[in-house]
Amino acid sequence: MSLDTSTRVVLSDDEVALIDAYWRAANYLSVGQIYLLDNPLLAEPLAPEHIKPRLLGHWGTTPGLNLIYAHLNRIIRNRDANVIYVTGPGHGGPGLVANAYLEGTYSEVYTGIEQNAEGLRKLFRQFSFPGGIPSHVAAQTPGSIHEGGELGYALVHAYGAAFDNPDLVVACVVGDGEAETGPLAASWHSNKFLNPVCDGAVLPILHLNGYKIANPTVLARLPHTELESLLRGYGYRPITVAGDEPANVHQQLAAALDEAFDAIADIQRRARRGDSAARPVWPMIVLRTPKGWTGPKSVDGEQVEGTWRSHQVPLAETHDNPAHRAQLEEWLRSYRPQELFDTNGTLRAELRALAPNGNRRMSANPHANGGLLLRDLDLPDFRDYAVDVSRPATLTHEATKVLGTFLRDVIARNRDRFRLMGPDETASNRLSAVYETTDKVWLSEILPVDEHLRADGRVMEVLSEHLCQGWLEGYLLTGRHGLFNCYEAFVHIVDSMFNQHAKWLSTSRELPWRAPIASLNYLLTSHVWRQDHNGASHQDPGFIDLVANKRPEVVRVYLPPDANTLLSVADHCLRSRDYVNVIVAGKQPALAYLDMDSAIVHCTRGLGIWQWASTATGEPDVVLACAGDIPTLETLAAAEILRRELPELAVRVINVVDIMRLQPQPEHPHGLPDKEFDALFTRDKPVIFAYHGYSWLIHRLTYRRTNHAHLHVRGYKERGTTTTPFDMVMLNDLDRFHLVMDVIDRVDGLGTRAAVLRQRMADARLAARRYTREHGEDDPQIAGWTWGSGERE
Amino acid sequence: MSLDTSTRVVLSDDEVALIDAYWRAANYLSVGQIYLLDNPLLAEPLAPEHIKPRLLGHWGTTPGLNLIYAHLNRIIRNRDANVIYVTGPGHGGPGLVANAYLEGTYSEVYTGIEQNAEGLRKLFRQFSFPGGIPSHVAAQTPGSIHEGGELGYALVHAYGAAFDNPDLVVACVVGDGEAETGPLAASWHSNKFLNPVCDGAVLPILHLNGYKIANPTVLARLPHTELESLLRGYGYRPITVAGDEPANVHQQLAAALDEAFDAIADIQRRARRGDSAARPVWPMIVLRTPKGWTGPKSVDGEQVEGTWRSHQVPLAETHDNPAHRAQLEEWLRSYRPQELFDTNGTLRAELRALAPNGNRRMSANPHANGGLLLRDLDLPDFRDYAVDVSRPATLTHEATKVLGTFLRDVIARNRDRFRLMGPDETASNRLSAVYETTDKVWLSEILPVDEHLRADGRVMEVLSEHLCQGWLEGYLLTGRHGLFNCYEAFVHIVDSMFNQHAKWLSTSRELPWRAPIASLNYLLTSHVWRQDHNGASHQDPGFIDLVANKRPEVVRVYLPPDANTLLSVADHCLRSRDYVNVIVAGKQPALAYLDMDSAIVHCTRGLGIWQWASTATGEPDVVLACAGDIPTLETLAAAEILRRELPELAVRVINVVDIMRLQPQPEHPHGLPDKEFDALFTRDKPVIFAYHGYSWLIHRLTYRRTNHAHLHVRGYKERGTTTTPFDMVMLNDLDRFHLVMDVIDRVDGLGTRAAVLRQRMADARLAARRYTREHGEDDPQIAGWTWGSGERE
Repeated sequence: MSLDTSTRVVLSDDEVALIDAYWRAANYLSVGQIYLLDNPLLAEPLAPEHIKPRLLGHWGTTPGLNLIYAHLNRIIRNRDANVIYVTGPGHGGPGLVANAYLEGTYSEVYTGIEQNAEGLRKLFRQFSFPGGIPSHVAAQTPGSIHEGGELGYALVHAYGAAFDNPDLVVACVVGDGEAETGPLAASWHSNKFLNPVCDGAVLPILHLNGYKIANPTVLARLPHTELESLLRGYGYRPITVAGDEPANVHQQLAAALDEAFDAIADIQRRARRGDSAARPVWPMIVLRTPKGWTGPKSVDGEQVEGTWRSHQVPLAETHDNPAHRAQLEEWLRSYRPQELFDTNGTLRAELRALAPNGNRRMSANPHANGGLLLRDLDLPDFRDYAVDVSRPATLTHEATKVLGTFLRDVIARNRDRFRLMGPDETASNRLSAVYETTDKVWLSEILPVDEHLRADGRVMEVLSEHLCQGWLEGYLLTGRHGLFNCYEAFVHIVDSMFNQHAKWLSTSRELPWRAPIASLNYLLTSHVWRQDHNGASHQDPGFIDLVANKRPEVVRVYLPPDANTLLSVADHCLRSRDYVNVIVAGKQPALAYLDMDSAIVHCTRGLGIWQWASTATGEPDVVLACAGDIPTLETLAAAEILRRELPELAVRVINVVDIMRLQPQPEHPHGLPDKEFDALFTRDKPVIFAYHGYSWLIHRLTYRRTNHAHLHVRGYKERGTTTTPFDMVMLNDLDRFHLVMDVIDRVDGLGTRAAVLRQRMADARLAARRYTREHGEDDPQIAGWTWGSGERE
Repeated sequence: MSLDTSTRVVLSDDEVALIDAYWRAANYLSVGQIYLLDNPLLAEPLAPEHIKPRLLGHWGTTPGLNLIYAHLNRIIRNRDANVIYVTGPGHGGPGLVANAYLEGTYSEVYTGIEQNAEGLRKLFRQFSFPGGIPSHVAAQTPGSIHEGGELGYALVHAYGAAFDNPDLVVACVVGDGEAETGPLAASWHSNKFLNPVCDGAVLPILHLNGYKIANPTVLARLPHTELESLLRGYGYRPITVAGDEPANVHQQLAAALDEAFDAIADIQRRARRGDSAARPVWPMIVLRTPKGWTGPKSVDGEQVEGTWRSHQVPLAETHDNPAHRAQLEEWLRSYRPQELFDTNGTLRAELRALAPNGNRRMSANPHANGGLLLRDLDLPDFRDYAVDVSRPATLTHEATKVLGTFLRDVIARNRDRFRLMGPDETASNRLSAVYETTDKVWLSEILPVDEHLRADGRVMEVLSEHLCQGWLEGYLLTGRHGLFNCYEAFVHIVDSMFNQHAKWLSTSRELPWRAPIASLNYLLTSHVWRQDHNGASHQDPGFIDLVANKRPEVVRVYLPPDANTLLSVADHCLRSRDYVNVIVAGKQPALAYLDMDSAIVHCTRGLGIWQWASTATGEPDVVLACAGDIPTLETLAAAEILRRELPELAVRVINVVDIMRLQPQPEHPHGLPDKEFDALFTRDKPVIFAYHGYSWLIHRLTYRRTNHAHLHVRGYKERGTTTTPFDMVMLNDLDRFHLVMDVIDRVDGLGTRAAVLRQRMADARLAARRYTREHGEDDPQIAGWTWGSGERE
């Protein structure tokens, strides 16, 4: 800690003493949560029964989190600043809970936890305790939009929160462990997408406490000049605070925060009065303080403070080891609790006065409970964007292109609260109509040849799925709306972020004080069946499987087969709350099947019989089911072949938009009652199900259904390369000819004509493959199929 | 392009002319691949029938890739350097194929593609053509270890390839689009883990062509000083090459590469003779050239060269639009093919002489076909590490800790070819025994308090799953061995990397010239059931579901229930080739069930009846099946209760280690024949299956089995928080008491005694929950259960 950080004196001695006391109070409460079952104010010597049997929590990062929190409180009071706190090292849960308690918010939200000794006892006991609260910062923590369990997303969440919140400063603590992750490393560049005019500010605070669980950190061991070079290269002006002597660090940190908030105000003032067009260099803070600061210096002869050994619970055997227990008591008493709390256990008034009031408290700031601020989208009538379908399956449209016109007007009407995210794919995904009303956010240099770039665009494009997802999460969690459009295969890049967001939603739905937020909407396109130009690396429909593993109350998956159903589904998703909605839809020209009225009815039901494509009027001989645009196309083409070639066969065609309808009712809120399922899929007839993704998903959703034994699913079986669209379906046995063969193989007693047809189908496959290999494109008769084109041949 | 890049003259005019001709040849072949079906040497004017009907490929990045390739050839020849080429912008497939062809490798590997006009015709036709080769760099491309379809992993692969290859220089082209991704942003810091003594070198070449698919790139629009600051902050010394005038850029690039290779040689020389202990500042190259350079300057009045419009196919309608076709012909002829190829279509000798020879050709370098260099591990006998199990389920061991002793000796015997990767979790995952023989790689400063850090450690720890995975992939693909230990929940961070690696393996297995490589081995621990201290964010067993979606010939999943089975499975995995092996095992003290001989038999079978725990001798009344350590524990405890309380009930206990055995034989090479499955699981008796992960996976694997209708699976249902281990299983109905209730609910005719037992079980659950809530730990009778302890009460 020998950095040259000359200390500017901004705090009086009294102010140092007060802020230090506040910090000690937060540290005391943090240690108390990790260790104590009882005796919260140390009214008596610490006995084994006062100590938790299992010590679960993380001390190492906590004093740093508490230090920053105390100093931000000062800034908020002095400037009436609007600040939220994003905790990168979110395993420092005790610190954030302690601060929410010190500010009084905790007792307001959880009325059982009062501001007295009994409240302290409960506060301590509940932490990491069965039936209590998690060890990490979580949805349960007032003031948080961020669970730090899986590291890497603090900074991207912070930027998402700052967008379109011009008054807000998002203070974001980045741990030096977390800073090693890919998503965090990419997040620094978010400053190229932050507009000082209409967005708020992010103040990154890189906390270099030097160690992770078991290792030093990469950034803490860079020569300081190299670190500064890195951060300047990321586009920031670092202000360094370093030390291990509290009074000195208090002065430094107060001065650094003053400087940073002055710089932010100055940048915003200049930008907002139009003085500066260039991307500003935003301030940030580098804070070097010891890991586990103020905790035990050493334990059993080994250094703990300032090392990785303070990461979790520095004194492990406090229940049974009297020496450890004594050291714990000494540690706790080092904070001088009697100076901090009165005899009732209430924080002393002069300390309480250091916290901001009301909604300015970071733990009570409504931006951190974004549903409170959520305003409905002003949505145009999606029916106005319908494509004309006078006869089903005769004209083609690019479904996402049609959706683009709707999204264009969604953006136009909601410029303050809706953003469209995409990893450099929005135009590729055919949503370009949005550029008729807006542009892509771009704060860097713009050249004459560039198109659709602007500082205040509503579309956010960067070649990082992590950033798209993280920005959107931060934006939604602070009460706004959005949609993430992504190549289907590459959404797997954010599998784990989706997991964490879904978990957050599951938890927050159970907390009455958390107001519902807008759903996280995915539009997955450029999907597995139409990545024939990019090949195998771009072909993976497995995200749906991942999504289906999360709790049914938060996940929804839609596979609209055409343009009008896509519009209907999108409108529904944009209105919904607290879900993750996955919409899978094609971008290539594809047949339209339903006029808008039919589309609305179909999407509302989630699945249904397409009578116009069926030959069965009553009970069918076979059911052709389909979900997804390409499987629907192949199923209809197969249905047409059967209608023509085996007219006596009663075929029912079912299309499924909402695949959660396939699950039994008790498993998912959308689950179809068994009786209705049986009425649709029959109790005993063969069902040939053409599915967009891996076939197992359909089995897993339906294995309890009466007719599951006769369900035969075709889907993607990981066979793909750069080839033609029809070759792709043939490679996976999902093509119309194979579906007809499947029907013939599974319906009993069809006779010779069917056997001949089966052979013709096998021949047709060979011919189609041959044609493709020879001409490099699909047979136009196959590629250009429309409903009835077979009859017209 | 107005950078101050003073040109040092290192090439004679003749050399410039030759290298430019070579570059033109590669560019010509690249354009030919994208466009031409025939007329490969433009022997006649370009006619529609010479042009592919579907134009699939990416031009924009290709000329840059070709330029670098040509100049690296010069370096290799001049210095007899050992270089491989990692192509970040891997959609530039035509370029790498072109170079492999120019070097002759392509014709050696694919003997149909000869070095003449007919070979050229085939080379062009097959590209992105049905039955041909993919549009991207892929396993099919000689010289590649890297498929660039999903961007972000080039640099981490390059470092993985360089480790323990002291003679190798890995030239790694990083696209400026890819550079925006999280994994790439984190990868720059890999230089803190590269040892100049025992590792080779990585030469990053950041190619700033300025645009992605539809946008400028972040890095290309940084002020150059800011970019330099960033790269210096990452620890590199950037050498900039910039321009759009070929002769000038040739001089600059030749000089830059000379400088870089000199610097690398110098760093290595000094480090290897012990002159320097500090982490070196490695050189890198920043190359600013126009996107789509040498392609059409503009098309239909819009600028193409130097913009995003050149990303894919600059001239789209060459088949039908004569003006476009003429422009294409002009473009092709601009490379003056007659100067490059003789009348037979063979590359002229003076150009062929510019390529290196034999294995020095980057397309033929055996490091890029790592299986050729693969040497078996020298494995100690895993049986020597066995724990003693005289009676099953009575003593506890930490399975991964036992494995650590085996891995310690694996490392000790294979210091040149085995690495253990972990995201700061190797100690947490209880593998610390490895530190008895090695340390963690660390090239930065080491403080006295630090432990187990060393420049030549065999353990690689960084807080980035992306880096761990990517390093290991690069290491394996170049012919070495390793294991990645990871918290189970957070392996989802690399879902997409796993997907791509599995796809690579599937493809490379079908290529006879690609030699098998060592399997990618995951040890997933700190798993869902024992993240009781970290809570919900750390609880997700879904990686197995993802893995099961990939082709059966490459994926294996093992759930060894105890220490000895873990040893047996690990030994098997370390010997295997071309698989992804997923091992899920606990790190907490857990009962040992099988002595080593039984463990070997059990693991070899993959599943089997545990007769000692069963009461059924013949056909059972009920089967208790289990997979995973915690489900096995609960199942055995349930079996004991049933044995004691309902002794007349014939219970069979089956443990499953290799869950792919559950699949039907045609679905997976490990699939159990139906007859054997029926013999184990019966044809009609209730099966209560306690499974480690999401229960649907078991259904999806078994839905075709005779007895599937009677299979009842308990697993993780996304209920978790910070609590106790037994509370975790209770929250998900996987606990022993609930399993007994499940048995009673599903076996007919059990009578009153069973009904009473069922109520007792329900009461026991309530009591256990109460105990936990009150004491903050599990009832010791439950937590301390061993086989027979129930009887001894």
